[in-house]
Amino acid sequence: MKEKLEQLKVLLHEIHDLSAANAVLEWDQQVNMPRGAAEDRGEQSATLSRIVHDKSTSDELGKLLNELTETAQNMDPDSDDARLIKVARRKYDKNAKVSGDWVAAYAKETAVAQSTWEQARAKDDFELFRPYLERLVELRRQYADFFKPYTHIYDPLLDDFEPGMKTADVQEIFTALKKEQVELIQQISQRPQVDNSFLFLNYDGEGQIAFGKKVITDFGYDWNRGRQDISVHPFTTSFELNDVRITTKIVPNFLNPCIFGTFHECGHALYEQGIAKKYNRTPIADGASMAIHESQSRMWENLVGRSAAFWKRYYKDLQQIFPSQLGNVNGETFYKGINKVEPSLIRIEADEATYNLHIMLRLEMEIGLMEGTIKAKDAAEVWKEKFKAYLGIVPPNNKEGVLQDVHWSSGLFGYFPTYALGNLVSSQLWERMTMDNPNVESQIEKGDFTKLLGWYREHIHQYGAKYEPQELVQKVTGEKINAAPFMRYLKSKFGAIYGL
Amino acid sequence: MKEKLEQLKVLLHEIHDLSAANAVLEWDQQVNMPRGAAEDRGEQSATLSRIVHDKSTSDELGKLLNELTETAQNMDPDSDDARLIKVARRKYDKNAKVSGDWVAAYAKETAVAQSTWEQARAKDDFELFRPYLERLVELRRQYADFFKPYTHIYDPLLDDFEPGMKTADVQEIFTALKKEQVELIQQISQRPQVDNSFLFLNYDGEGQIAFGKKVITDFGYDWNRGRQDISVHPFTTSFELNDVRITTKIVPNFLNPCIFGTFHECGHALYEQGIAKKYNRTPIADGASMAIHESQSRMWENLVGRSAAFWKRYYKDLQQIFPSQLGNVNGETFYKGINKVEPSLIRIEADEATYNLHIMLRLEMEIGLMEGTIKAKDAAEVWKEKFKAYLGIVPPNNKEGVLQDVHWSSGLFGYFPTYALGNLVSSQLWERMTMDNPNVESQIEKGDFTKLLGWYREHIHQYGAKYEPQELVQKVTGEKINAAPFMRYLKSKFGAIYGL
Repeated sequence: MKEKLEQLKVLLHEIHDLSAANAVLEWDQQVNMPRGAAEDRGEQSATLSRIVHDKSTSDELGKLLNELTETAQNMDPDSDDARLIKVARRKYDKNAKVSGDWVAAYAKETAVAQSTWEQARAKDDFELFRPYLERLVELRRQYADFFKPYTHIYDPLLDDFEPGMKTADVQEIFTALKKEQVELIQQISQRPQVDNSFLFLNYDGEGQIAFGKKVITDFGYDWNRGRQDISVHPFTTSFELNDVRITTKIVPNFLNPCIFGTFHECGHALYEQGIAKKYNRTPIADGASMAIHESQSRMWENLVGRSAAFWKRYYKDLQQIFPSQLGNVNGETFYKGINKVEPSLIRIEADEATYNLHIMLRLEMEIGLMEGTIKAKDAAEVWKEKFKAYLGIVPPNNKEGVLQDVHWSSGLFGYFPTYALGNLVSSQLWERMTMDNPNVESQIEKGDFTKLLGWYREHIHQYGAKYEPQELVQKVTGEKINAAPFMRYLKSKFGAIYGL
Repeated sequence: MKEKLEQLKVLLHEIHDLSAANAVLEWDQQVNMPRGAAEDRGEQSATLSRIVHDKSTSDELGKLLNELTETAQNMDPDSDDARLIKVARRKYDKNAKVSGDWVAAYAKETAVAQSTWEQARAKDDFELFRPYLERLVELRRQYADFFKPYTHIYDPLLDDFEPGMKTADVQEIFTALKKEQVELIQQISQRPQVDNSFLFLNYDGEGQIAFGKKVITDFGYDWNRGRQDISVHPFTTSFELNDVRITTKIVPNFLNPCIFGTFHECGHALYEQGIAKKYNRTPIADGASMAIHESQSRMWENLVGRSAAFWKRYYKDLQQIFPSQLGNVNGETFYKGINKVEPSLIRIEADEATYNLHIMLRLEMEIGLMEGTIKAKDAAEVWKEKFKAYLGIVPPNNKEGVLQDVHWSSGLFGYFPTYALGNLVSSQLWERMTMDNPNVESQIEKGDFTKLLGWYREHIHQYGAKYEPQELVQKVTGEKINAAPFMRYLKSKFGAIYGL
């Protein structure tokens, strides 16, 4: 038994190392790679992905997992070893259904698609990206088919990011949520609007970066096990627990993307950096799901980073960096400005009250693309129609429309809903956290995040992917993922700002 | 036959992709990686190296190469396919002798050794690096033993970088060369010394980089298929022919390292970028040997970059960037200053007349370490003794002594002699090139490198590793590697500068 477990770990370490190498290739592609290298990089990623796939679906691994699953029935089901076997088994069973050819084709396609998407976005040229989108949608439909029979073609995609979650579950949560959010936004729209024009002045990039770095250092980001770079689309990536990198982007005449983006990515990174080291190089060394991951990033971005308490401590630092832009803007005006509620074009710049609508639109489109009721070639037009329906405005171009996100160019379908679920979970966890740590606001006002981070380290981070997302949320809060705490939070926060 | 060739290419492509991925990991380690990640990166590199080794020594590949070697006897021996089979066969035969365990141990050791070396060098602490050096020497001795019987234990190491070259060949060339070089240096030391104090003023890093970029763009470096970064030790790396990256380092109070280092690395990169695309993702997509590689880097660094013609064109550009430092230094003084001959501590900063002595010292030490006549633990002291004997001065510390080069921390023993051989080859090729292109000096004076680069593209670059180094030099110049053209060059150049 012990020997077989060691054998399993050797195999899992190898798979994890190769996946980490592939993640380095992807990071490099987005941060550093010269444009002419896209095709070669596609080949390299494809080769590596194929080998990862072969090893993840090898008979040797399957046989070992079969044997271990049987013997694990006599183990404490919550022990690390029993959980490792369970998580590895689940991944194996999924991977074994997918053909190696598909994996290689997918890796090759996404490598080139991403570079093309970058160009298409820069040139506002949907037609340039269209053939790639068509092929990626087709590849993802093929992927779903490996998991037949399914209740819904979108289920296998969602399950990759949210183990155990079904399309119907998400639709149910979203339907209820949509109604409440739209009502809130309508109430807000009746009230006098707040000013946020000062956010759109010219903000020097170095100053933006410097402020972000200072804050996330205070949050607890470990620079000895990470770094920050610039990329077209901000992201966090982990090459094992000791190398968790974040990227950000700078918009010279808009303060939010860099600052709140940095807090957001730092939230992802703190989760990964907080996973217990004993899980390194195994499938447990990962977030429980993307929704749990987003609950962390959105927590640092919004519940902390857009709170009144936070800016009581940090606004003077920001004013010092940007005296000519912010010297005459008082703290309350700034706080209201960064929380202005208004339908807008770009998801990652959206306020907390409208954000989830951006997600619902994407979910509808993804489901349509997978079902075949929406054609990839029509995506730009459908986007505009749906945007009007959800947010009441029509994007004037495609780079601020269908081309704004990196996800589809990376072949990520099924990922978007986790953002909205993450918002819900972030509020569920926060309500629970404040019961243990009622003075969190005054700690934040002092720039002291030790207890706050400590609570998440203890209750969420350390476990990595040991527990499934619903299980983890239930273990910590006593409830399943639901929208009530999030709606309470929105109503309380924006009620105060807009005097509802 | 055709089908088997295609099968071979599929296997070689896969090996090449994985090696490229490993090269990305190494580049990242030296350019970007946070310090805390060294151990994890070691595991990733070890895993990848082991898989590359397994695939490079697989029975499938061996069987295919056996069959193809036989049928290749009916092919034109200079055809691309016949050469590909030959080069792949040679690599296979070498790799098959080395155990997978050794390869993994070596990759793991070097990953951590490099980070430690960086720290040791920064702290001037040889003892910190000593245990790694001991283990790496031991690993390399074990490596040599895989190739028993050998005439000399250093032969298998040298052969990795200089296919076909023997320790005795190098020693013979070096013995003759040493006598002539030492004589020249003695003659120079009798003459009034030139001034180069202006090179040691404070030179802003951005200005240094900007000048280097401008020049190598003129040389023909393709930025669409490469990039430049900062690292502790400058190097060039290629992840396939469409992604050839260089690094440089900045010394704020010494102009040479960044500028001439940039020309040097660009020389390596132009070679790789010039290899015919049809060889991409095969073992032909590489330099013929390290000496041929160095002949290119040293050519752009010295024969072009330290020539009077070059500075006639570019000195005004440099003055414009650094008016306060160079405004009052005339072109002739500058030219003599950058060519000052003087025993100095740092190899990569050494002048052309003393450079090879730095190499000879390292060769003696490497041979001693491999033979066991020098112990790794004594390396710092032995370095000092030998340095006195070769260059007449004693390094005041280890960071400017035994710790100055990255090579040993990367496990590279057998590499250094190729630098000196490269100097010799650079002059051999240059003499031949000027026969076809007698107006090269006036082209350089105009900043026009098209014909110059074109000649090397045609006669050297395009072939990649299709020919062995001696074969290539003979094909182009009619002679084997020898020191005569290099000594002619040194005597003519420094005769003029020092009025001998």
